[in-house]
Amino acid sequence: MSTSTALLTDHYELTMVDAALSAGTADRDSVFELFARRLSGARRYGVVAGTGRLLDAVSRFRFADEELDWLRERGFLRAETLDWLADFRFRGDIWGYPEGEVFFPGSPLVTVESSFAEGVLLETVALSILNADSAVATAASRMSHAANGKPLAEMGSRRTGEYSAVAAARAAYIAGFSATSNLEAGRSWGIPTMGTAAHSFTLLHDSERDAFEAQVAALGPSTTLLVDTYDIEQGVRTAVEVAGRELGAVRIDSGDLPIVVAQVRRLLDDLGATSTKITVTNDLDEYTVAALAAAPVDSFGVGTSVVVGSGTPTMGMVYKLVARTDDAGNWVSVAKKSADKVSVGGRKSVRRLYDRRGVATAEAIFLGDGPGGAPEGEELGASARDVLVPLVRAGEVQPGHTGSEGIAAARERHRLRVAELPHVAMSLTRGDPAIPTEYR
Amino acid sequence: MSTSTALLTDHYELTMVDAALSAGTADRDSVFELFARRLSGARRYGVVAGTGRLLDAVSRFRFADEELDWLRERGFLRAETLDWLADFRFRGDIWGYPEGEVFFPGSPLVTVESSFAEGVLLETVALSILNADSAVATAASRMSHAANGKPLAEMGSRRTGEYSAVAAARAAYIAGFSATSNLEAGRSWGIPTMGTAAHSFTLLHDSERDAFEAQVAALGPSTTLLVDTYDIEQGVRTAVEVAGRELGAVRIDSGDLPIVVAQVRRLLDDLGATSTKITVTNDLDEYTVAALAAAPVDSFGVGTSVVVGSGTPTMGMVYKLVARTDDAGNWVSVAKKSADKVSVGGRKSVRRLYDRRGVATAEAIFLGDGPGGAPEGEELGASARDVLVPLVRAGEVQPGHTGSEGIAAARERHRLRVAELPHVAMSLTRGDPAIPTEYR
Repeated sequence: MSTSTALLTDHYELTMVDAALSAGTADRDSVFELFARRLSGARRYGVVAGTGRLLDAVSRFRFADEELDWLRERGFLRAETLDWLADFRFRGDIWGYPEGEVFFPGSPLVTVESSFAEGVLLETVALSILNADSAVATAASRMSHAANGKPLAEMGSRRTGEYSAVAAARAAYIAGFSATSNLEAGRSWGIPTMGTAAHSFTLLHDSERDAFEAQVAALGPSTTLLVDTYDIEQGVRTAVEVAGRELGAVRIDSGDLPIVVAQVRRLLDDLGATSTKITVTNDLDEYTVAALAAAPVDSFGVGTSVVVGSGTPTMGMVYKLVARTDDAGNWVSVAKKSADKVSVGGRKSVRRLYDRRGVATAEAIFLGDGPGGAPEGEELGASARDVLVPLVRAGEVQPGHTGSEGIAAARERHRLRVAELPHVAMSLTRGDPAIPTEYR
Repeated sequence: MSTSTALLTDHYELTMVDAALSAGTADRDSVFELFARRLSGARRYGVVAGTGRLLDAVSRFRFADEELDWLRERGFLRAETLDWLADFRFRGDIWGYPEGEVFFPGSPLVTVESSFAEGVLLETVALSILNADSAVATAASRMSHAANGKPLAEMGSRRTGEYSAVAAARAAYIAGFSATSNLEAGRSWGIPTMGTAAHSFTLLHDSERDAFEAQVAALGPSTTLLVDTYDIEQGVRTAVEVAGRELGAVRIDSGDLPIVVAQVRRLLDDLGATSTKITVTNDLDEYTVAALAAAPVDSFGVGTSVVVGSGTPTMGMVYKLVARTDDAGNWVSVAKKSADKVSVGGRKSVRRLYDRRGVATAEAIFLGDGPGGAPEGEELGASARDVLVPLVRAGEVQPGHTGSEGIAAARERHRLRVAELPHVAMSLTRGDPAIPTEYR
């Protein structure tokens, strides 16, 4: 697989560059905005994820010989355009919501300021990454809250594309999960990985006892034994017999969990395995996790539902031209006018407003001067925080947003920002955004 | 990004290998089966996709120094296990449903025959690829039928992870789509790519007329002009004035499509642009495509809904050990016994049964002898076709399943196999599978 991200792009981005170069409009200064018109799934808030990955993708967005040869062969671009692409690297500015931040309808999550041609090229890959990663993070954030402080592991690699799985592990970790089953996420991003054995391991052996003995011999008594291949009660008894009272945990992957978990806890305690933990992994989502709040579960493994965004596999974000210069160099706000997809033109800045107790009250979006141009809190008569940060300046990715460092910062930021939201944000029911978006 | 696929794997696959090597059970001959317990979304049939990609992934499933160094550093595997991984390449057999084939609950889509350790290692990546790609292909197949022969283009790259987008383009093409917007899918797989311009291109220019003139100058009058940035009627008039009656097509991306499309068709005809086609792209899915059956639409562009599987972003397939040998080398059928996730143990072969008119009547799954072991049609009293084919033999990928050749064969196979299904298969309502799965 090529390390270039330049062809992870829609065909029409290149034909637009081609036509704009031909018309002499490709160099017009432009502002593109990436935002969601609404919160998919009637979520109360969204969680930004993928920003660090996007910045990596922008750095690798180069047309090398491999890409150019294929494009030349395809024959849909003029020679002048191919030359332009050969020289291309993004030299503009990108402002945005830092990763882990929460967002609302209209929040300008990524603002690209560059020539039209430079900005339009980034559209597809920016949307691919932010739409997918934010959908996972938004679902994961709800699950983190539902788990009420108990650890959650992301185990859904098998239920999404093999590279999306790596990104999903990263997004879930930012939104509060503690670990992942995905090894590549461990290698690429330093996320803790975990797992012990599947039912196949038990079935491989001549008896459940043989399987447990094999596992404990290799992984030690602190391992997690999967006890529901045959009969759960017998499985728990055998597990404690084999591993002793120091058995780390038992995993339950089937059955009516609130009842089964309570029975297993009682049995473990009766057997003296009072410090042995219980982890559950049976098609969980934020609702079933919440339903286990009162059960003696110690940790959760969540698979399918987190990697597919728990009913909302994509956030429906769009990437729109909101302002550009004319031939005289003056800025013109632009927006599509047709029927059902109205956008708000113009460069924007954002302040999140807070009440005196520090609870967020509104997402205030200021039209006009662009990032950094909004009034300060005192002028607004409220406590206010500037949300947008510079991510790229003159083509240079700003420090702190990529790699493991960016992930750690994003995870902490997510924790802080969610804690500032009003209580209604934690509702798992469909409804209005937790705070209103106000255009000023 | 590494070209190895070995870490696109769950942590527990490696701890199982570790424990089984330690216990002396890693080399037991084993049969793993990949199948769906039910058809997600109550679809009437599933479409197998991803098989060619899986075979590529198996070929690249190698632990090189880069992977081994990271695993060694993580410290959760014994030195003996790391040595075993260093030597690993898959040397077993894989049988399966060829790509593009239709499937039903229980259909053994991939059957891996190898040592336990070899087979278990492939679990995660096999499921990631088949679950995601088949979800897209199954949705795309429904849309292809709903379009009733009119061309469909996949344009959803922005609404799924950037690499899943490439795989989705491939899966949709196999299931009957004609083209994709995704350039990497064009380069990697030879799928036709297409696209012309977005609203941003119109907004970049001082007027819609300027934008159309720029586009026609660069791309010629046979291009597709997007006419709904401001007022659709005026947009169509300007488009024909600029490009002439040879205008290739107009694209409509908003509004109440059946009404708007009819109005645009009348207007184009009135303007003499009788050969100008109409393409529509407004958040379509199989239902809205079907609702446009009587409208004068010439082609469809489908985005979000196809790449996220139209409500079913993953197929819920699982990968289970169904048989293994004991110490004496005898085969033992195995299956998890617990509460709600019963599997059918044993090696299997499959015949699809047909009535005298060539309409499929049942998916007959024979327990016992494994692939190739089922009775012939005459013994079954029905016309019957062997469904399983060898995909890998002694570690060697069999020809015809990978690359562009595999895709072309899969696309043709999909067309043939869907045509053999009873009419109820084409229902877009939720319901039972089009044919029953019978275990014999």
